[in-house]
Amino acid sequence: MFKTNPPDMIYLTRRESFSASHRMFRHDWSDEENFRTFGKCSYPNWHGHNYILFVTVKGVIKPENGFVINMNILKQIIREKVIDRLDHRNINLDVDFMKGKIATTENLAIAVWDQLKDPIEKEGAWLHCIKIEETENNSIEYYGEKD
Amino acid sequence: MFKTNPPDMIYLTRRESFSASHRMFRHDWSDEENFRTFGKCSYPNWHGHNYILFVTVKGVIKPENGFVINMNILKQIIREKVIDRLDHRNINLDVDFMKGKIATTENLAIAVWDQLKDPIEKEGAWLHCIKIEETENNSIEYYGEKD
Amino acid sequence: MFKTNPPDMIYLTRRESFSASHRMFRHDWSDEENFRTFGKCSYPNWHGHNYILFVTVKGVIKPENGFVINMNILKQIIREKVIDRLDHRNINLDVDFMKGKIATTENLAIAVWDQLKDPIEKEGAWLHCIKIEETENNSIEYYGEKD
Amino acid sequence: MFKTNPPDMIYLTRRESFSASHRMFRHDWSDEENFRTFGKCSYPNWHGHNYILFVTVKGVIKPENGFVINMNILKQIIREKVIDRLDHRNINLDVDFMKGKIATTENLAIAVWDQLKDPIEKEGAWLHCIKIEETENNSIEYYGEKD
Amino acid sequence: MFKTNPPDMIYLTRRESFSASHRMFRHDWSDEENFRTFGKCSYPNWHGHNYILFVTVKGVIKPENGFVINMNILKQIIREKVIDRLDHRNINLDVDFMKGKIATTENLAIAVWDQLKDPIEKEGAWLHCIKIEETENNSIEYYGEKD
Amino acid sequence: MFKTNPPDMIYLTRRESFSASHRMFRHDWSDEENFRTFGKCSYPNWHGHNYILFVTVKGVIKPENGFVINMNILKQIIREKVIDRLDHRNINLDVDFMKGKIATTENLAIAVWDQLKDPIEKEGAWLHCIKIEETENNSIEYYGEKD
Repeated sequence: MFKTNPPDMIYLTRRESFSASHRMFRHDWSDEENFRTFGKCSYPNWHGHNYILFVTVKGVIKPENGFVINMNILKQIIREKVIDRLDHRNINLDVDFMKGKIATTENLAIAVWDQLKDPIEKEGAWLHCIKIEETENNSIEYYGEKD
Repeated sequence: MFKTNPPDMIYLTRRESFSASHRMFRHDWSDEENFRTFGKCSYPNWHGHNYILFVTVKGVIKPENGFVINMNILKQIIREKVIDRLDHRNINLDVDFMKGKIATTENLAIAVWDQLKDPIEKEGAWLHCIKIEETENNSIEYYGEKD
Repeated sequence: MFKTNPPDMIYLTRRESFSASHRMFRHDWSDEENFRTFGKCSYPNWHGHNYILFVTVKGVIKPENGFVINMNILKQIIREKVIDRLDHRNINLDVDFMKGKIATTENLAIAVWDQLKDPIEKEGAWLHCIKIEETENNSIEYYGEKD
Repeated sequence: MFKTNPPDMIYLTRRESFSASHRMFRHDWSDEENFRTFGKCSYPNWHGHNYILFVTVKGVIKPENGFVINMNILKQIIREKVIDRLDHRNINLDVDFMKGKIATTENLAIAVWDQLKDPIEKEGAWLHCIKIEETENNSIEYYGEKD
Repeated sequence: MFKTNPPDMIYLTRRESFSASHRMFRHDWSDEENFRTFGKCSYPNWHGHNYILFVTVKGVIKPENGFVINMNILKQIIREKVIDRLDHRNINLDVDFMKGKIATTENLAIAVWDQLKDPIEKEGAWLHCIKIEETENNSIEYYGEKD
Repeated sequence: MFKTNPPDMIYLTRRESFSASHRMFRHDWSDEENFRTFGKCSYPNWHGHNYILFVTVKGVIKPENGFVINMNILKQIIREKVIDRLDHRNINLDVDFMKGKIATTENLAIAVWDQLKDPIEKEGAWLHCIKIEETENNSIEYYGEKD
């Protein structure tokens, strides 16, 4: 009944945000070594950001509703798997999926990808990109690509 | 006379906006069914958005003017083919190229692509991407790709 | 115990958004007269916007918590009194506090003020300003001032 | 030689940002009491924000250079007195001018005012407003006003 | 027939932009003196900005149309009196109302006020504020106030 | 010691800005011909923009620090090779790497790519994209692609 173009590939992006603290450092380095590599980001008492997360999902339009994925379901997945575990938290101390990793946005983007890939595929779409803006000037994108 | 790098591929993006009303629903579903799938977006008396449209065009630089496409011509095409038909309109009721389609941003992006592809090619460039932001948190991209 | 400067006057602003449809027109005018005054905003099948609402509250810092007003309570008031009644609605048809008024942002700002003034005062602060952005280029502010 | 309008009052605003961590809580309250008042903002391991600071200065135009205040001098003052002491720091633990205060943006705005008022007056202008955006949805303004 | 609150004071803001070049310097100063005061802004071959102009108008709602001022008329006034004379122009060389003034944003804001004050009053409203953002970090406001 | 996913491909974007003047024209065309092609952009006394530059770098995460590239080193490269040579300058007259080219953003993006490619590769990453926003409505991207 509704005319759509079923085989067209569509990309849908949801923007969410979370406020978290972190610190970049290695336990096996001295304060001086950490400062030399990480600069102010290594300061011992943590600092924080309003991180902006963009989740891009890829898929074909479902003819029965005109959607790639139901946005309300996508929002629920992102909030449950990612936002509720990061928002108002310390990325180094509180977030199980960042344990043992340096708290860079690079590592965070991959970890967020790993949380979202399967639940999104269960809804009939593919995770295409995780983009995280740490500040208005710095951002990271990850597409699940291997070198 | 002017040194350019003719074979380089350049992407040019023009941002435009339009304010429209719409509603997501299927005539063959009850109000309850529509609400279950489309939520508040199915409310009967319409709601609306300031849609932001990004049209990305791809091509090589013309040595005589340093342009991929003349921006003033691109603006004219976008306004005539898209903005003038959507701005301050009801997407479900007033827009011929959306007739018979559920008024999702997914379907709208493909329909906008279809309006712009040929006129842009006549100017010696290719349409690369249609991106539509429905709200600051939700957006759709379409690249003319088939699954 | 906590040092504050109790008599200092602080202004706190909360930003919220809602997507609604509307139309500007008068029943007692012809289509031509409406178009002459309201232009495209008078089109019969409605259009819409992502309205951005800024609610500014004024008060002194409470020494026991360092707040002018608890943000969570303010959010609840704004959502219950304003957002839930406007979001995904038709301002002309669905919103009781806009009945009988032309659906301009000017009139909307005053009506929103009237919804919020008393509930905010019950929390020990004063409503200072309602700002509504209809588009990124047009906005209205109302401070409860009389000419 | 240069025509200006010397007695006109001009407001100049400089925008800066800093990334910091903080936590809202009182030592004399239990975790439950802190959570009841401060919600997620009381979580023990800190969270953080990209704070945006707007410093508004007021004054008359100096006929010899057309400035209210030399922007480079204003930037230096703000960085030395405020940004260098807050950026990549923990507001509760590291910032001397926030010692003994609950780390709300209300208290922070007044403390920033106190750092900047005198140095700006030495440059022949007046501090008019400190605005701090904690997130894109929440902000505080302070004008040095008493209730 | 339409219920409004006639004596309420409303502030309406229109945002416009223009791209212009300028340079800050005094003819009676050496290059070194100009650099010492104006820094990079004194470089001889001009630089430029995307200036964002916010015009705030103040008035009461007209009961017959619900407007403080008809936005289309306000846009026409701003474009004719200001934008058409500044956009894609050199502020020092091309703009009659800036002749003999140092091309600071402070002086520009006052000059723009002088262009707009009378035409807006003829439409039954008052000019309240001229705000010009020179960059995302620097802006000037002028309210027609005398010291 | 630190678990990372070494073969994952990560994209990191740094945002910078510069304010410059320019003019689009050809010496071998008359004023009328230049105006016909370049419109207001050909006005003789220059105009200018706040250009926003996005540099996207691509690479794998270094296990020892969790970075694709050290952001402080990337910032230094961009500032030294690009920003310091463009900021507060006239693109037609002052910028050696734009000599002999029409000052379009298309040509500028390729020229910026050429400045940054080698220095970024020396740091163990690849330049992926140069994006330049000339205004909020117009932008160019270049990926080093050949047609």
